[in-house]
Amino acid sequence: MIPAPDETHDPSALSWVESANHGTTDFPIQNLPFGVFRQRAGGRGHIAVAIGDSVLDLDQCATHGLLTTVSPSTIQACRADSLNELMSLDHRQRLALRKQIFRLLHADAEARVRDLLQKAVLDRFDLDLELPVKIGDYTDFYASVFHATNVGSMLRPNHALLPNYKWIPIGYHGRASSIVISGTGIRRPHGQIMAQGATTPGFAPSRRLDYELEVGLYVAVGNGLGSPVPIAQAEEKIFGLSLVNDWSARDIQSWEYQPLGPFLSKSFATTVSPWVVTLEALLPFRIPAFPRLPEDPAPLPYLDHEIDRRWGGIDLTVEASITTPKMREQKLSPYRLSQGSFREMYWTLAQLLTHHASNGCNLRPGDLLASGTVSGRAPESRGCLLELTWKGEQKIRLPTGEELGFLRDGDEVTLRGWCEGSGKARVGFGECKGRILPSFTEAAPS
Amino acid sequence: MIPAPDETHDPSALSWVESANHGTTDFPIQNLPFGVFRQRAGGRGHIAVAIGDSVLDLDQCATHGLLTTVSPSTIQACRADSLNELMSLDHRQRLALRKQIFRLLHADAEARVRDLLQKAVLDRFDLDLELPVKIGDYTDFYASVFHATNVGSMLRPNHALLPNYKWIPIGYHGRASSIVISGTGIRRPHGQIMAQGATTPGFAPSRRLDYELEVGLYVAVGNGLGSPVPIAQAEEKIFGLSLVNDWSARDIQSWEYQPLGPFLSKSFATTVSPWVVTLEALLPFRIPAFPRLPEDPAPLPYLDHEIDRRWGGIDLTVEASITTPKMREQKLSPYRLSQGSFREMYWTLAQLLTHHASNGCNLRPGDLLASGTVSGRAPESRGCLLELTWKGEQKIRLPTGEELGFLRDGDEVTLRGWCEGSGKARVGFGECKGRILPSFTEAAPS
Repeated sequence: MIPAPDETHDPSALSWVESANHGTTDFPIQNLPFGVFRQRAGGRGHIAVAIGDSVLDLDQCATHGLLTTVSPSTIQACRADSLNELMSLDHRQRLALRKQIFRLLHADAEARVRDLLQKAVLDRFDLDLELPVKIGDYTDFYASVFHATNVGSMLRPNHALLPNYKWIPIGYHGRASSIVISGTGIRRPHGQIMAQGATTPGFAPSRRLDYELEVGLYVAVGNGLGSPVPIAQAEEKIFGLSLVNDWSARDIQSWEYQPLGPFLSKSFATTVSPWVVTLEALLPFRIPAFPRLPEDPAPLPYLDHEIDRRWGGIDLTVEASITTPKMREQKLSPYRLSQGSFREMYWTLAQLLTHHASNGCNLRPGDLLASGTVSGRAPESRGCLLELTWKGEQKIRLPTGEELGFLRDGDEVTLRGWCEGSGKARVGFGECKGRILPSFTEAAPS
Repeated sequence: MIPAPDETHDPSALSWVESANHGTTDFPIQNLPFGVFRQRAGGRGHIAVAIGDSVLDLDQCATHGLLTTVSPSTIQACRADSLNELMSLDHRQRLALRKQIFRLLHADAEARVRDLLQKAVLDRFDLDLELPVKIGDYTDFYASVFHATNVGSMLRPNHALLPNYKWIPIGYHGRASSIVISGTGIRRPHGQIMAQGATTPGFAPSRRLDYELEVGLYVAVGNGLGSPVPIAQAEEKIFGLSLVNDWSARDIQSWEYQPLGPFLSKSFATTVSPWVVTLEALLPFRIPAFPRLPEDPAPLPYLDHEIDRRWGGIDLTVEASITTPKMREQKLSPYRLSQGSFREMYWTLAQLLTHHASNGCNLRPGDLLASGTVSGRAPESRGCLLELTWKGEQKIRLPTGEELGFLRDGDEVTLRGWCEGSGKARVGFGECKGRILPSFTEAAPS
């Protein structure tokens, strides 16, 4: 069943937090994404909701007795230091919390409530945002047929797309320990590299360091081991989405990946954005799944559902931009590398989740399933440098005159994502950012 | 530096727990592996050490003030409900605990101590053993050159071993959530399968269900993100070893694995044995690393260390056996499928760990690194049915007259491992066991 919009989706709703009412903010009152912050002074993590340029501290809301229309287990979950407990609440409880927060922040909230909330509404720029979730397992998919085709055609010009691609959502297990929050520096990894023309590999810093622009979903309630998730129930198992940068060392990858797939070329770091945008907030932007071509196979029955076909897509624009040290020196704006849309993904989120659990694999609250690189049909929508520069062969000329192949030390990549449409409030994802640090052997002694 | 044996390795040492003194036990006083149990009555997990047919409850030892020669943080770690905290202690603290436990259980222990210990020594068969560790990340390697060659030659008869194999320890990220303790039933997974001769895949229960006999290491202290582990320090980062059965659905694997490696063919379940045998207990069984052939490349410098060459191997025998429902009906003993040795692994544990961290990937206490299938040169040492039956083509005849290709419902696979040698006390690993349950669609309604 496709849920109906409710008061929290009303595009004309305004907040008493003024900065939430400018049309350009990522975080109007219709969004209400969840994150975790720590005050610079120290202390433990608090769960918060982004609102304009501020955050609402849910721990403080609980302390001041402001969470009046939610269950005791919801209140307890709001006092934790990660979102996992909140993610494990049932769908009805999560909805009740969204409505409660909406009313607290609404321009019509009583003066008494607003007074009490003064202490709970904090300036976002005074806070350190933290990894919002304790991620048990991280899985990375490969859900863009354009990305798979581009990468495949570099390796196999005559049969770019492997025969399984349009039947099975390809994915692999990623590394959970090295997932970091936006803003964390990314140390250039060493690895085994077989240079072109060489006959023996060397061990050296990667020279083909890349980003991958992805969207990740966080699992809500999950499923027990041995209990698959029918596709009709898959959306209930999704809490919300974030941006993911799956940093990749292409030279390490090409030497190590056969026969068991990418390993150390990916596990040195993966960056996630701090705010988790709920599926509820994305409701106005749901669209039909990516249309299959007449020659494409129909999904196997376990991956096929009418509602998913009509509603499984998300009209979410994503963008990657870069600054180099020279650009920052010259105070130039970030240079946009690509802009694409999640609507062009071959597999829907429900298909990814249902496929993942189809062998009985248990998904737990807070598990992260990333989409794989979001690349669309258009060349300017390609979500990584491997594709944008075609293996580094077609360099990108930056406003400074610098030529960009792969990432150099000091380069900073920022991912952004947002949904917008006429008559709808904008729902944004904030930033997912990381700057390349020199490898240990190349760093200047400090 | 190669550590020297101490009193805890004295092969003549006896325990006042009589069952520990029979030469055939896996758990003499020289072993002292760690695990976690829960009393059948319920309650939380307790850390324990196996001794003969009993276990020593370390929580009780702490309560009765018997842990007198260890640090307060060690005592606290002994009261936890998983081994993670114990694993994060430094090497000296772990050694002190081993000596303390050795003395408590030694035949020469004072009568007063033995009286106090009566409540802490429990019959193993009255207890449920639990997953001993909260495994943050699970990595599976491919460290047997014989296994890699056999599997490769089924796919590529003319170049069985890929060019990277002897240079780089091949591995992939596994699924942590579906790791289960020995004795847990293994539900036959469904998956996408492209049948031989078919042109479209189907979704069905796996018909080529296999086990993989592996040895796993648990990480001790770990390393920070961005901080590689020099190979000379790798052994300090290893807490101990267990048996691992990396169940595999070969028909799902062969359709899904390109280009990103195994995924759902592995993630439905991985079984670990309950007891973690420490590196200290294995000290008398350390041997030189597997000898390289003259034509093999020397390991790259980051994977090469003189002590590892002289001492990086372990003389550990591993074995897989099976019972079928018919065998159990006829009260037949388990049938031995294979017996091999960990000494034949191409890469050492230190090489696996150092390689894993070589890109800066952070390993955390309790992370599991499995070796990959332990197969040796001899056909009878092959550690999975794929190899033993050569893709199911050469069936194994069981004592009942049944023919075994891949695993059928009700088949139970047991892995065992042990070290022994003249003048040394046997150090065993106990069992790692799992029985195949019918798939959901094929199970009789209950």
